[in-house]
Parts: sequence; C-alpha cells; structure tokens
Amino acid sequence: MSRIAYVNGRFVPHAEAAVHIEDRGYQFADGVYEVIAVAGGRPVDETAHLDRLERSLAAVHIRPPMARQPLKLVMRELLRRNRVRDGMVYLQITRGVAPRDHAFPATAKPALVLTAQRAKPVQARRAASGVKVITVEDIRWRRCDIKSISLLPNVLAKQMASEAGAYEAWQVDADGRVTEGSASNAWIITEAGEIVTRPPDAAILAGITRAAVHELAAREGLRLVERPFTVAEAKAAREAFLTSTTAYVIPVIQIDDDKVGDGRPGPLTRELARLYDAHAGASAAALASS
Amino acid sequence: MSRIAYVNGRFVPHAEAAVHIEDRGYQFADGVYEVIAVAGGRPVDETAHLDRLERSLAAVHIRPPMARQPLKLVMRELLRRNRVRDGMVYLQITRGVAPRDHAFPATAKPALVLTAQRAKPVQARRAASGVKVITVEDIRWRRCDIKSISLLPNVLAKQMASEAGAYEAWQVDADGRVTEGSASNAWIITEAGEIVTRPPDAAILAGITRAAVHELAAREGLRLVERPFTVAEAKAAREAFLTSTTAYVIPVIQIDDDKVGDGRPGPLTRELARLYDAHAGASAAALASS
Repeated sequence: MSRIAYVNGRFVPHAEAAVHIEDRGYQFADGVYEVIAVAGGRPVDETAHLDRLERSLAAVHIRPPMARQPLKLVMRELLRRNRVRDGMVYLQITRGVAPRDHAFPATAKPALVLTAQRAKPVQARRAASGVKVITVEDIRWRRCDIKSISLLPNVLAKQMASEAGAYEAWQVDADGRVTEGSASNAWIITEAGEIVTRPPDAAILAGITRAAVHELAAREGLRLVERPFTVAEAKAAREAFLTSTTAYVIPVIQIDDDKVGDGRPGPLTRELARLYDAHAGASAAALASS
Repeated sequence: MSRIAYVNGRFVPHAEAAVHIEDRGYQFADGVYEVIAVAGGRPVDETAHLDRLERSLAAVHIRPPMARQPLKLVMRELLRRNRVRDGMVYLQITRGVAPRDHAFPATAKPALVLTAQRAKPVQARRAASGVKVITVEDIRWRRCDIKSISLLPNVLAKQMASEAGAYEAWQVDADGRVTEGSASNAWIITEAGEIVTRPPDAAILAGITRAAVHELAAREGLRLVERPFTVAEAKAAREAFLTSTTAYVIPVIQIDDDKVGDGRPGPLTRELARLYDAHAGASAAALASS
C-alpha cells in the first residue's frame, strides 16, 4: 500500500504531494502545525490539539482553512486510507501562496497539508530504558508558545543532541533555567518528591501531553509544582522525564555527563508513564464510542 | 511571456514550480536564502551575496547543492529566460526532502530554488519622499546573523508596520537599542554628523547593502561609527535611513509619531543614496565587462 497525503483539498500519493515554491510556509516559515498521536485508530486528545491549533492560528492571524468538523473528517479519512491504527497524524497550515513580500498578502488562501504515519516501535524501548539529554543554550524566539513551523533552532538543538548520542536537548534560558526540549517538555522530581515543570509561559509550548500528565498526577494526589528549574536542580533531582505527543512519557536517566538518581528510570516516572498510556488508550476509546 | 523558476535542476513555469511537502524548508524552516538586486541585467554585489550564502549554509551545516560557478550560470540563465534587466533574483537552499524528524537526515539532498522578477517602480518614489518606520520589540532568535528562512517574527513585524501605515518596523532589543528592520538595516545620522549603525553582531544580518554604504561613506571621508543606538537617539537624530538589497538607501522621515529632523529626507542621506545608486550600476557594469 502506498502512503497518501492530504494537500489543499485533495488526497494524493505521498510521493507526489507538493506545494508551490511561493507557499509562505516555504519562504517565511509563515505557518503553524500540530502532531497528534493515534491509538487504536483514533486521535489522542484531539480536542486539546485542535484547540491549540486554533490558538496558534489566531496568534499569527491566519484564518482557519476549514472548520473543525470537516477537518476531523479529513483526519479520519487520511488515517483510514493509510491504515494507521497506532501512529500519528501531522497537520500543517500556512498563510498560503503569494508573491514574496513579508507583510500578509491581501488575498492568499491558507494552505492545509496533512500526513499520517504508523508509530515507530522504538518509542516503547525508550520508555522502558530511559534516555540521555544534553543541555544547550535556548536561542529561540520569544513566542515559543506558538506552535509555528519556524523550527530551525529546534532542528539545530536536536541535531546537537543526536551528535552527542542523546535523545533530546534541554534548552536553557539566560538565567540557567530549563525551558523545554527541542520537541518535548521537561520535568523533574525533586528529592522532596515534588513533580516540577515550567509553567506555560511564552518560553515554552503548552504541551498537550504535558497538560494530560499534569491532570493525571493531580488526580492521583501527587505533589505538583509549576515553576522553572535550573540545570543544577535537574542534575540533583531524584528522577527526570520528558513528555511529548509522540514520545508519551520517557524517563530521563542522564543529563549531560551526570546520571539522574541511580541512572535508571525512577518509580514515580514509571507510574506516570503507566497512567498516561492508559489515558491515551482511554482517550482514543472514548472517541471511538462517541 | 510567462515567468520561469528554477527548481532542483529544472527550469519550470512559475505556476508549476513546486516542492515536496516534506522538504525541510516547509516543515522546519530548515534553510537559508539570498535576494540579489539586478541592475542592467547583472546581479549587484554578487560575490558578497554568494559569500554570505556560503556562510549561512555553513552555520546551519547544509552542504551547498551546487558550486559557485554553475550557480552563477543558473542565475544568469534565469534572468535571461525571465527577461529581467532591473529587478531581483531570489535564491533559497534547504536541507532537502526527508521523513519528518528534527535532527538532520542522513541522506537528504539539499534543495535549490530560484526565482527572478522585475523591479517594482515604487522604490524610486520611496527613495525620493522618504518613509515612516515604527518601533517594535525584537522577539527573534539569537542568530539573526544567519540569513535563514525562519522568518515568521519578521513577517509579524512587517505586518505591524503595514497596519500602522509604515514602510518598516525597527526592532528593539531588551536594552532599548534598535537592532534592524524586518528586512533592512537601520541607520541614523547624529546632530554631530556621525553616521551610526549597529555593528554586525548576532542580533542583525550583516547586510550587503549596509557594507557597501559603509565602504562608500568611508571612501568619502564621512564620519562612521558602528555602535548600537537607542530609539530615543534615533528620534533625536538629524537624519535616518534604511538600507536593503531591494530598497537600496531609503530616507526615514518619521519614527513612530516623531518626525526625524524636519520630516524630510536629509542631505547626507540623499548623498549616500546617490553614491549607492552609482555603486549598484557600477557593480553591474563591472560584471558585464568582466
């Protein structure tokens, strides 16, 4: 079976899926995106992702190219055509095609592209064994709360991690505090047992998985604190982990050259991972029966 | 005559010029670009632009898709096919097409896209009458010395200018000092007659027109100072102007609600504009005879 993409109103073979060179996504990074996990054939936390998509669009003043209900239908049809039961759907909206000029074009029609793919089985192994992260300077713009495709700094950070044999790069602000990973949110669990993550300010993306883990932990009566933490604090933490749409909850067992705790996935992290796995499955099941 | 673009090895009708949706330029802003003015059928300051392109590519670790000589031939052929005597050529290089993953792909082939277009006659009128600029917070990343396509903040700044009836937005750093415009460098001429512009640090792009104007002014024995200047200084300046590849030298006659000097293009700015116009023509002529 060949992969199918959705491009501006048409389902097309992936290999032929193209956009014009003057699509402003290509020339100006003038667009936003979402990645939604798929479990049991259904998008996980779909409403939260579509809410965030609408917030991102509003922040950069791009008109939604399609209402929410038809967009959901397109997603489902794309999953069906690609026979994705477990994996992800990628959704990108740009300001559309117009002669190159920085200011917004008067008449461009927003462009909509979707792809779907099956999950990589490597994630489950990472969740079991934990990963290493490195710390890098956060050189990004000041509106990281917008999920824009202006991702070159994230690419460079992730590449640094890759070259260091690490899974992720935790970016660090001018005050020595961790903001987030290149494509995930960062968490620690202190010696006192507090689960700490940065509040959703303009320096980070308000992760959907982050919010779900937060809610699950709160429901269990665990001690949650939203505050920035330093690299030194992270290295002295009892446990650490990261969250993202596609990675779910992954234990962090090493930061730069320092082991976190005893260098193995911690018990509270494993419990949160278990809770989130159940949530993702339940989220999908609830959608299936609705 | 229909416009022709160059896309990955082929000259194609502009309307059909497309790239794959997984070109990393489209999904990650993972690429760099140049805009080169064309005067008398020849690229202005071509060597300086191609030098900067190579610096940008090196900074983001993208391999040049083509050596300099053939690239120059492609540019010339594109200008010929589009019958551009006065205008510009746009050149974009991305890391190429690969399945979406932040880190660099192992095997992607860098993508190369060029377009050419004739000049807009509006520039000359702006040069004569001067323009208004507004000041906005500089929210961009910390590597503005790389000419990347990660331009969403520039787009948002230029749009703010446009909505305020201004030509450009001068971006201001955390210390209240002007960095640069959304697509141009910023200059003032103080009461003492000093020509002031920010040194080429990581907060600005080292403009090719900026460098040429700098050199021309130095050759005339004018007093040049490379240092950051504040918005207050700019508003109290005797003259102000901006430089860019396509705008050349344009007088700035108003900053936010404040007139610069008497609100008309200043004499030293007009002299620099005249010198630069001559330089652009001479640069093209020198190439033509070489």
